[in-house]
Amino acid sequence: MKQKLKERLDVFSDAIIAILITIMVLELPVEIHGQSVHYVQLFHAVGIYLVSFCFIANLWYQHAVIFNEAKTVPNQIVVLDLSFLFLMSLMPTFTRLMTEATTQVTVLMYGGLSLVISLLFRRIAKTIIHEKYTDKKDMRKVYNVIYGASYLESGLLYLAIMVVGYFWPRVALVLYIIMPIRS
Amino acid sequence: MKQKLKERLDVFSDAIIAILITIMVLELPVEIHGQSVHYVQLFHAVGIYLVSFCFIANLWYQHAVIFNEAKTVPNQIVVLDLSFLFLMSLMPTFTRLMTEATTQVTVLMYGGLSLVISLLFRRIAKTIIHEKYTDKKDMRKVYNVIYGASYLESGLLYLAIMVVGYFWPRVALVLYIIMPIRS
Amino acid sequence: MKQKLKERLDVFSDAIIAILITIMVLELPVEIHGQSVHYVQLFHAVGIYLVSFCFIANLWYQHAVIFNEAKTVPNQIVVLDLSFLFLMSLMPTFTRLMTEATTQVTVLMYGGLSLVISLLFRRIAKTIIHEKYTDKKDMRKVYNVIYGASYLESGLLYLAIMVVGYFWPRVALVLYIIMPIRS
Amino acid sequence: MKQKLKERLDVFSDAIIAILITIMVLELPVEIHGQSVHYVQLFHAVGIYLVSFCFIANLWYQHAVIFNEAKTVPNQIVVLDLSFLFLMSLMPTFTRLMTEATTQVTVLMYGGLSLVISLLFRRIAKTIIHEKYTDKKDMRKVYNVIYGASYLESGLLYLAIMVVGYFWPRVALVLYIIMPIRS
Repeated sequence: MKQKLKERLDVFSDAIIAILITIMVLELPVEIHGQSVHYVQLFHAVGIYLVSFCFIANLWYQHAVIFNEAKTVPNQIVVLDLSFLFLMSLMPTFTRLMTEATTQVTVLMYGGLSLVISLLFRRIAKTIIHEKYTDKKDMRKVYNVIYGASYLESGLLYLAIMVVGYFWPRVALVLYIIMPIRS
Repeated sequence: MKQKLKERLDVFSDAIIAILITIMVLELPVEIHGQSVHYVQLFHAVGIYLVSFCFIANLWYQHAVIFNEAKTVPNQIVVLDLSFLFLMSLMPTFTRLMTEATTQVTVLMYGGLSLVISLLFRRIAKTIIHEKYTDKKDMRKVYNVIYGASYLESGLLYLAIMVVGYFWPRVALVLYIIMPIRS
Repeated sequence: MKQKLKERLDVFSDAIIAILITIMVLELPVEIHGQSVHYVQLFHAVGIYLVSFCFIANLWYQHAVIFNEAKTVPNQIVVLDLSFLFLMSLMPTFTRLMTEATTQVTVLMYGGLSLVISLLFRRIAKTIIHEKYTDKKDMRKVYNVIYGASYLESGLLYLAIMVVGYFWPRVALVLYIIMPIRS
Repeated sequence: MKQKLKERLDVFSDAIIAILITIMVLELPVEIHGQSVHYVQLFHAVGIYLVSFCFIANLWYQHAVIFNEAKTVPNQIVVLDLSFLFLMSLMPTFTRLMTEATTQVTVLMYGGLSLVISLLFRRIAKTIIHEKYTDKKDMRKVYNVIYGASYLESGLLYLAIMVVGYFWPRVALVLYIIMPIRS
C-alpha cells in the first residue's frame, strides 16, 4: 500500500513537471504584421523558454534520481514534495517577470525563488538518503550522481549572483541563464 | 482485466488532478507598465493559487490513499469518481469567482461546492472501505490515515463557515483559506 | 516489446483524453462587472461543460475496457486509435460551436462528428475482439460490458437526431445533451 | 534503479508529447459573427492541426518503439532525449508561423527544424541500437520497424523540399503536408 502511494506520487509529480514545461510554449509570442514576422522578439522568447526548459528538466532529472532511492514515502516527504512542486510551478511566471522587466526587484525575486527551491530539494534529498543509507561513503556516491562534482558550489553561486543582481541586474540575468545550461 | 481498469482510472484521475493544479498558474496576472510590476495584485493572486493548490493537493492525497485500498473498481465507483473529478474541475473557477467578487452569493457557492465534493468523497471512501473490511476497528484505522483525527469536524466546519459567510462574506473568505492549510 | 508499446499507447491516450477533458474548464467564461457576476452565462457554460465531460468520460471508459482485452497492438490498431484521438480532440471545439450558434449547419456537423467517432470506435472494438475471441457468445459478452444493452440503438439514434436537427436545430441540441447523460 | 529512471523518462516524454499534441486544439479559431461561423478559416486551421497531429503522433510512435529496445538509459541518452523534446515543443509554433505567413524565411525555418529533429532522433536511435545489437542484420530489422522501407530517403526529401521552398514557398508547404501523412 505504501509503495503504491509512492508510485502515484511519482506519476503525479512527473505529470505536473511535464505540464509546467510545456505550458510555457503557449506564451511564445507569434506576432504577424502582414507578411513580416517579429523575429527578434520571437527568438528572444525562444531563448528564455530554453533557459526555463533546462532549469526544470534538470530539476526533473535530480528529482527522478533521488526518488528512485526511496521505496516508500513517509508523510513528511509527501508534504515536502508537494511544496517543492508548488514553488516550481511559480518558476515560469517569475522567469517571464524577470525577462520582461529586468530590474533589481525582479532579479532578486527570481534568485530568491531559485535558492528556496534548491534548498528545499536538498532537504528532500537529505531526508530520503539518510533514511536509506547509514554509511557516509554510500551517501556521497548518491549525491554525486545527482549534483555531479559541483555539489556545494551551486548554492553559493546563487547567493553570489543575487549580490551581483543587486548592483547590476542585467549581468545577473545573463549569469542565471548560463548556470542551468552548464549542467 | 478488472485490475487493469482500476490502474487506468488511477492514472486518468492523477493526470486530471495534475492538469487542474497547474492550469491555475496560467491565470496568474503578470501586468507590466513600463518597468514597474503590479506586485500587490500578483502576490494576492499567488496567495489564492496557494490556497487552491493546498485544497486540490490534499484531495489528491486522500484520493490516492483510499484508492490504494481497492483492488478493483465496480462500475458504481467509476461513476462516483468521474463525478468527483467533474466537481473538482470546477474548483479553480469558483475560487477565482469568490476572490474577485467577495459577495454573499459567491461565498455561499464556493462553500456549497466544497461541501458537495467533501460529501461525495466520503461516499466513495465509505463504499471502498465497506467492500474491503468487515471489522469496524480496521475501518476506523483507514479513516484516520485519510482524515487525521478531525474526521467528523470538517464537514460541520464547512457548514459553519457557510452560515458565517451569509452574514460576513469577507470573514468566510479568510476561514476558507485557513482550513486546507491547517491539514 | 510489443506489450510495452501497448502500455505506452494506453498511457498516451489516457493523457490526451485527460487533457482534453480539463482544457474545457479554461473556456468557462467568468465575467465580472463591478460586484455582479453574469450567472446565467456561467451556468449555461457549466452545463455545456458537463455534457462534454460526460461524452468524453464515457468514451474513455469504453476505450479503457476494450483495450484491456488486447495484450498487444498491431500497427493497424495504433493508426485507428490515433485517428480516434484526433477526432475526439475536435469534440470540444464542435460542442462550443453548436452551443454558441445553434443553426442547422453546426448541429449537423456535431452530429456527424459524433457519428464518425462512434463508428470508428466500433471498428477498433471489433478488430480487437475478433482477434481475441472466436466464439460468438464471448464476443457478445464483451460488447455488453462496453455498450450496455443498447448496443445497436445508439448508432441509429445519432442518425435520427441528425434528421431532427435538419428541421429543428434547437430540439436536436437538447437531445444530444440527454444522450450521453443517460448512459 | 537505472531501469526505474528509464520508465520515468518514458512517462515524462509521453506526457510532454500528449500535452503538445492537445494544446494545439486551443489555438483553433472559433469566430462567430451573429449566427454565421467563419468556416473556411476554421477548416483551414483544422487541416493544419491534422498535419501537426500526424507529425507529432508519428514521432511519438517511432520514439516509443526505439525506447522499448532500451532497458536502461545512460546519461547521454537522457540529455539527447530532453533536447529532442525541447525541439519538438517548438514544432506547433513553427507550423503556425509557416501557415500564417508562407514566406521563404518561415518555410526554410520549418524545414530546418524538421531536419534537426529528424537528425537528432536518428542519433538517439543509433545510440540505443548500437548499444544493444552487435549484428548488422538485427540492427537493420529494428530500423525497418521504425522507418519502414524508406529509411534513407526521408532525410534527403526534407533537404529537397527546403531547396524547393527557397524558390516556391507555397509548393513546399503542400509537400510538407503530404510527407507525414504518407507515413
